Amino acid sequence: MLEDLYGDAEISAHLTPEAEVAAMVQVEIALARVEARLGVIPSEAAEVIAEALAAVRIAPKDMVGPTAAAGVAVPGLVAMLREAAGAHGGYVHWGATSQDIVDTGWVLRLCEVLAILAGRLDAVIASLADQAEAHAGTVMAGRTRSQIATPVTLGLRIAGWLAPLVRCRDRLAELKPRLLVVQFGGASGNLSALQGRGVEVMAGLADELALGCPEKPWHTERDGLVELANWLAMVTSLLGRMGGDLIILGRSEIAEVRAGRGGGSSTMPQKSNPVGAEALVVLARQVSGLAATLHQVLLSQEERDGTTWPLEWLTLPGMLEGTGAALRHAEVLAGSLNPAPEAMARTMALGGGAIHAEALAFELAQHMPLPEAQALIKQAVAQGGDLVAGVRRLCAERALDTGDLDLSAQTATDAALIARIVATARSVPD
Amino acid sequence: MLEDLYGDAEISAHLTPEAEVAAMVQVEIALARVEARLGVIPSEAAEVIAEALAAVRIAPKDMVGPTAAAGVAVPGLVAMLREAAGAHGGYVHWGATSQDIVDTGWVLRLCEVLAILAGRLDAVIASLADQAEAHAGTVMAGRTRSQIATPVTLGLRIAGWLAPLVRCRDRLAELKPRLLVVQFGGASGNLSALQGRGVEVMAGLADELALGCPEKPWHTERDGLVELANWLAMVTSLLGRMGGDLIILGRSEIAEVRAGRGGGSSTMPQKSNPVGAEALVVLARQVSGLAATLHQVLLSQEERDGTTWPLEWLTLPGMLEGTGAALRHAEVLAGSLNPAPEAMARTMALGGGAIHAEALAFELAQHMPLPEAQALIKQAVAQGGDLVAGVRRLCAERALDTGDLDLSAQTATDAALIARIVATARSVPD
Amino acid sequence: MLEDLYGDAEISAHLTPEAEVAAMVQVEIALARVEARLGVIPSEAAEVIAEALAAVRIAPKDMVGPTAAAGVAVPGLVAMLREAAGAHGGYVHWGATSQDIVDTGWVLRLCEVLAILAGRLDAVIASLADQAEAHAGTVMAGRTRSQIATPVTLGLRIAGWLAPLVRCRDRLAELKPRLLVVQFGGASGNLSALQGRGVEVMAGLADELALGCPEKPWHTERDGLVELANWLAMVTSLLGRMGGDLIILGRSEIAEVRAGRGGGSSTMPQKSNPVGAEALVVLARQVSGLAATLHQVLLSQEERDGTTWPLEWLTLPGMLEGTGAALRHAEVLAGSLNPAPEAMARTMALGGGAIHAEALAFELAQHMPLPEAQALIKQAVAQGGDLVAGVRRLCAERALDTGDLDLSAQTATDAALIARIVATARSVPD
Amino acid sequence: MLEDLYGDAEISAHLTPEAEVAAMVQVEIALARVEARLGVIPSEAAEVIAEALAAVRIAPKDMVGPTAAAGVAVPGLVAMLREAAGAHGGYVHWGATSQDIVDTGWVLRLCEVLAILAGRLDAVIASLADQAEAHAGTVMAGRTRSQIATPVTLGLRIAGWLAPLVRCRDRLAELKPRLLVVQFGGASGNLSALQGRGVEVMAGLADELALGCPEKPWHTERDGLVELANWLAMVTSLLGRMGGDLIILGRSEIAEVRAGRGGGSSTMPQKSNPVGAEALVVLARQVSGLAATLHQVLLSQEERDGTTWPLEWLTLPGMLEGTGAALRHAEVLAGSLNPAPEAMARTMALGGGAIHAEALAFELAQHMPLPEAQALIKQAVAQGGDLVAGVRRLCAERALDTGDLDLSAQTATDAALIARIVATARSVPD
Repeated sequence: MLEDLYGDAEISAHLTPEAEVAAMVQVEIALARVEARLGVIPSEAAEVIAEALAAVRIAPKDMVGPTAAAGVAVPGLVAMLREAAGAHGGYVHWGATSQDIVDTGWVLRLCEVLAILAGRLDAVIASLADQAEAHAGTVMAGRTRSQIATPVTLGLRIAGWLAPLVRCRDRLAELKPRLLVVQFGGASGNLSALQGRGVEVMAGLADELALGCPEKPWHTERDGLVELANWLAMVTSLLGRMGGDLIILGRSEIAEVRAGRGGGSSTMPQKSNPVGAEALVVLARQVSGLAATLHQVLLSQEERDGTTWPLEWLTLPGMLEGTGAALRHAEVLAGSLNPAPEAMARTMALGGGAIHAEALAFELAQHMPLPEAQALIKQAVAQGGDLVAGVRRLCAERALDTGDLDLSAQTATDAALIARIVATARSVPD
Repeated sequence: MLEDLYGDAEISAHLTPEAEVAAMVQVEIALARVEARLGVIPSEAAEVIAEALAAVRIAPKDMVGPTAAAGVAVPGLVAMLREAAGAHGGYVHWGATSQDIVDTGWVLRLCEVLAILAGRLDAVIASLADQAEAHAGTVMAGRTRSQIATPVTLGLRIAGWLAPLVRCRDRLAELKPRLLVVQFGGASGNLSALQGRGVEVMAGLADELALGCPEKPWHTERDGLVELANWLAMVTSLLGRMGGDLIILGRSEIAEVRAGRGGGSSTMPQKSNPVGAEALVVLARQVSGLAATLHQVLLSQEERDGTTWPLEWLTLPGMLEGTGAALRHAEVLAGSLNPAPEAMARTMALGGGAIHAEALAFELAQHMPLPEAQALIKQAVAQGGDLVAGVRRLCAERALDTGDLDLSAQTATDAALIARIVATARSVPD
Repeated sequence: MLEDLYGDAEISAHLTPEAEVAAMVQVEIALARVEARLGVIPSEAAEVIAEALAAVRIAPKDMVGPTAAAGVAVPGLVAMLREAAGAHGGYVHWGATSQDIVDTGWVLRLCEVLAILAGRLDAVIASLADQAEAHAGTVMAGRTRSQIATPVTLGLRIAGWLAPLVRCRDRLAELKPRLLVVQFGGASGNLSALQGRGVEVMAGLADELALGCPEKPWHTERDGLVELANWLAMVTSLLGRMGGDLIILGRSEIAEVRAGRGGGSSTMPQKSNPVGAEALVVLARQVSGLAATLHQVLLSQEERDGTTWPLEWLTLPGMLEGTGAALRHAEVLAGSLNPAPEAMARTMALGGGAIHAEALAFELAQHMPLPEAQALIKQAVAQGGDLVAGVRRLCAERALDTGDLDLSAQTATDAALIARIVATARSVPD
Repeated sequence: MLEDLYGDAEISAHLTPEAEVAAMVQVEIALARVEARLGVIPSEAAEVIAEALAAVRIAPKDMVGPTAAAGVAVPGLVAMLREAAGAHGGYVHWGATSQDIVDTGWVLRLCEVLAILAGRLDAVIASLADQAEAHAGTVMAGRTRSQIATPVTLGLRIAGWLAPLVRCRDRLAELKPRLLVVQFGGASGNLSALQGRGVEVMAGLADELALGCPEKPWHTERDGLVELANWLAMVTSLLGRMGGDLIILGRSEIAEVRAGRGGGSSTMPQKSNPVGAEALVVLARQVSGLAATLHQVLLSQEERDGTTWPLEWLTLPGMLEGTGAALRHAEVLAGSLNPAPEAMARTMALGGGAIHAEALAFELAQHMPLPEAQALIKQAVAQGGDLVAGVRRLCAERALDTGDLDLSAQTATDAALIARIVATARSVPD
């Protein structure tokens, strides 16, 4: 029932047992083709295998038993594929090991899923860049440590959501060549059964599948996947940060920005719950937790580690789908940001406009040392009432001519800062 | 495809959307009955509601949309139930809030699941107690920090798996009264709509559902669930510890204990992979990771927190099912422990029997200060060869009569220690 | 520089290297006394040892090198202690192993630290119980999912901070007998060097140190410590929840409750940052993170595991000190809660008093079915303006006589709920 | 006492309170200089400030109180610095906020610490590259899922430790430009007090401190630090993986590779505990746990978040020092790898040489379909005894002429794989 909130149909289509089997079969077909091309197995075997395997239909439920028996799906799968390939079945999976098929099958599906995620990330980036510009002049209270601080613009707040996502776009470009590489190592990772032809086959398989080719098989080197997990957790957390800000801005007492469609209550007709923003925070925590669990696969031991490897199968789907859902919610929220300038003005007027205390101090500092100016402002704050009026009064008492106390400069730099990050956001990455 | 390895059909039956809806409907029926009994709603309404709701059939897929809209399933569910109850529909969910129904529904299902888990835990405890006794005289090498240390018995090793599980049985008994309590608080947790009758209704609902009644509604007090998560993670980790020990004992080079059925390889016919033991370690890590994620619900804010609460729905099913799977695997492994005494003896003979160094030192310490005895043993160890012979030789060189160097006392206490914990394991808990 | 924020001098005094050495020496002295009493070592040796060890002064820096060499402090320590005991030095550490001394030393210090933490927890509980009662009639807006929901009392909110802490008091009482037990197992945990006298010595040592005696040594059974870690993380997180609520209640835009002393800014004179409340959240996250790390010691392998055991030394001090700091901050905050009823009233008036929507619906439900009443209220909410007036207007339009629309019952149950948990809080636990 | 095991003196020198204060003072001096150069503050003020601040001596203990009061060290520090600068004190910290000084101070120290870590990582990479080459012909048993699989070379195992570290060298080069940037944003991150000159001052300060300049201040954008934490956790975990492999290879029953200096026992003279390798695993877990905790700062809210920011101060020092310690241990272990070829041969002979099963199957597959060959091998394995002899016997029974059953090709590819990664390791990164 939670699938529209925390799941993602487009991404989960690549994570079903059916998709998993299909990817593994694709690897076995490619392997046979490459080995035939290199003369490692007979050409006619590869042709038969390719045709038979492309036609085979495997019900995931038939693989539950064999998978439980072996702890991995491949032995059962290979038995079925060999049977399908008939007399040439012996050339199916030639020189490979279970891990080669499982891992390369995952990499193939990661290519698809990362393309979806990258597209959505680009859309969120584009939307936030537009919004940052659009609201570059919308002044609101900046809040530090939950207290009203000095004025900022909504555009700059949005730019702050945008900036780390732009960096995550770069990070994705950097990690992909390390991650999207073929896995082909044979039983213990040294291509033992290929009698000296292993590197050729590995490179050929990479070509055939349009994947990168690593220096060596990476059986227990799981850093590429952990780097991906860190990226997923980072992206989702950064979206969760936007969600958290939107929850605060949408609180009943604040109501400065609305975004998305509010959720109803079973008993309170006035409620408009921030369902999408909450989902972003929930997904941030879920994906981060899964990433922390996955992190343990870095300690995989020896040539294959059955105590760590399956953690990938148990955590990656949730991370990929969760990140996809978060990007989907974020796109909706980013596209529907709806500020309420009067509410922003009301907040800024709280406490007699004490939000201008810093600016007033720097104005006065043209006439006295800053610490003295700050002390004077502090005195005015303590007296309560309108701060500008209070400051004028105190200055008058001291016979200080302070001019017109210009407060407009406080957000004078926002537009420039926004423009800098928006330009980077819109530049085409290499 | 992984469901027999990391899943559990018996437990997951209580975690399906259908089971979730059924439990929530059960709560709504009970609520109507209690409120009618107390005169809060009309008696005839309760009768109609009970009958209509018992008959209603709700397809989980019809709830996906409403759940996504509200961020929680109940508003959509209540609308359907009210419709089902016709003219009396207004008395469905009287004075309740979404959280009351979701949480109490969870508690009802936890009662069922905990009963299954407790039964399996008892079976594992009983099996390990038997095995500890059966192998109280099976001497093997104790290993500390991965090095052969002094002799122990397999029975004591098993007793070490058993002891913390017995303590977990106690912990479960302690946590249940805190966890298995009704949730009924209304919109903000103060039973506002019940016009002063709230405590009566809460207590009545607890009675009706055979649950405990808390001092107050626990909307954002999630310590009971986190305590459960800690328990699930602890049990699974303790089973993972047994799995880890079995993996080492079953390594090709050690082969002192076999357990379960070995898994085959897709390419190496001699392999017998420790599938069940590996699954225990995997599940330990997965459930512990989920528990760490869930832990954040303790920081739920205000009267209801949409950024934390759903983490329970996303993590509890995996934790419950994972713990169930782990107990199931553990029962199989505990029941099939198969020691190889010759392999144990071979290990103990490694390094000239240096495993007896401590015992020899204490034997010699009857004739010289212990540090001198240890120095002499160290010298003998350094010389290589059979340690007992080497020690005799060194003693003879020093004209020391050391008697017969009795080594039999090393495991003299194992049986007593085993008996102590087995007795506790077999005592009926309060 | 952060020690007054996140540290605790009273607790850290038990966690210094000096305190660690002192506790280990205390264990060695007790062991010699017990072994002498039981005739395992000569009486005169125990007397000399007790006197010499009580007098020995060991500089922690002298133990850095030996500890790095052995991976544990005890071999170096025992060498120093044996030298101090002269001719009887060989009877120091008789039949013990490093882990016995380290673990029992930790347990002794945990006794001290837990007494401090329990005292502070009692103080927080007492203070919150008083405050819950004191504010049982202070009505404020309840907030669910960051939106104003229905009225509650501040007293009930406080009672919600209190209730899980009372349960943690019970949890502490339950875990202590499992945790505060002697560790004495010898090299591999079967008391091999004591030639059949092991159980007697273990029991005697427990008596001598006023600790519990376990069924068997618990070398790699670390569940007691993990249960403690879970408890520390839970207590700190529950205090962090109070901190989080106080941060929201103290936001500039809300300002309904102040607590503690506000922190100043380096540049904004008006700021009053919620330093204490923030520290509670920070400590919640830190202690929870350390607990998740420690959790891995449950997977300790064989008779001693050098890859897990030291995690306790690296995480427990921070957890104990962090929990101590959190309780200290919580006591200050709980004792200085300062509500602003006018601000509370102002919040309740927001949105035309839509906070009363649920109550109005149940008032109207005396005259029409609840769903109709809710629809009418929803219509009134949508029209804006004062909700009660709007409802009256809509009722008048429909010629409905709804009487006086009494809203006072909304918080009618708060006092009873508060009284229930306060009574439990004040009852003396067994 | 644990500082030589889990700490690092060279790195911790940059993490002391003294170093922290010094870095912050350096930032304040640089800020004054830049602002004077740009005409934002008077030139003579900057000269006096630079001289006075360079001379000031601040005892960290004097900052404990002010830090606890404000929740951050800077307000107290600025007060001291202003006093030191006398009449020009008001120009200290001009337009800056606490976070600017704390964060930029951290970045300055990270520059130093990352240079140390990078140097050590290079040394470990160089050492492992040498060792991989040196042992490219040392054949040992490959182990998959804890079972003997097929032969590999020790060189390839070492290459498997090396390869992900080489990738981490690349990752460090990529993350540094994102991380090592100045923080300068003023109160709410929009440089409000600098009256439109903010971007110039930010850029100037970056130049002055030889740091990068970000598009905008990054007050609550903590992705750079989390990326660093992920890197530290990844490096340490990859070293922990090497440690874990060395622990297995050094087990008493296996004893195929020794590395580092063994640790002694307090009671067993023969023990040689793998202290360094264990420390690698412990540090992997500790640093990973701290990184998971730090990850939460990604959800920092609004313009500054006091509930997350301090987590950096509580976790970064332990991560940096722990990674430093791990690299130090790894360098010692990598430089002292000491294989025992006889032990390796002994392992390979276990089970009648069943390790050659795969190779035999592929030899036979020249004469029969692979599945038949595998079935024949399986039969031979089941019969026990020497596998090659058994296979010959079964072939003879079937009148199969199988030639000489060449097993030498199994590790024929290892050298090529090793050469590929060693070449990358030795190439100079951009």
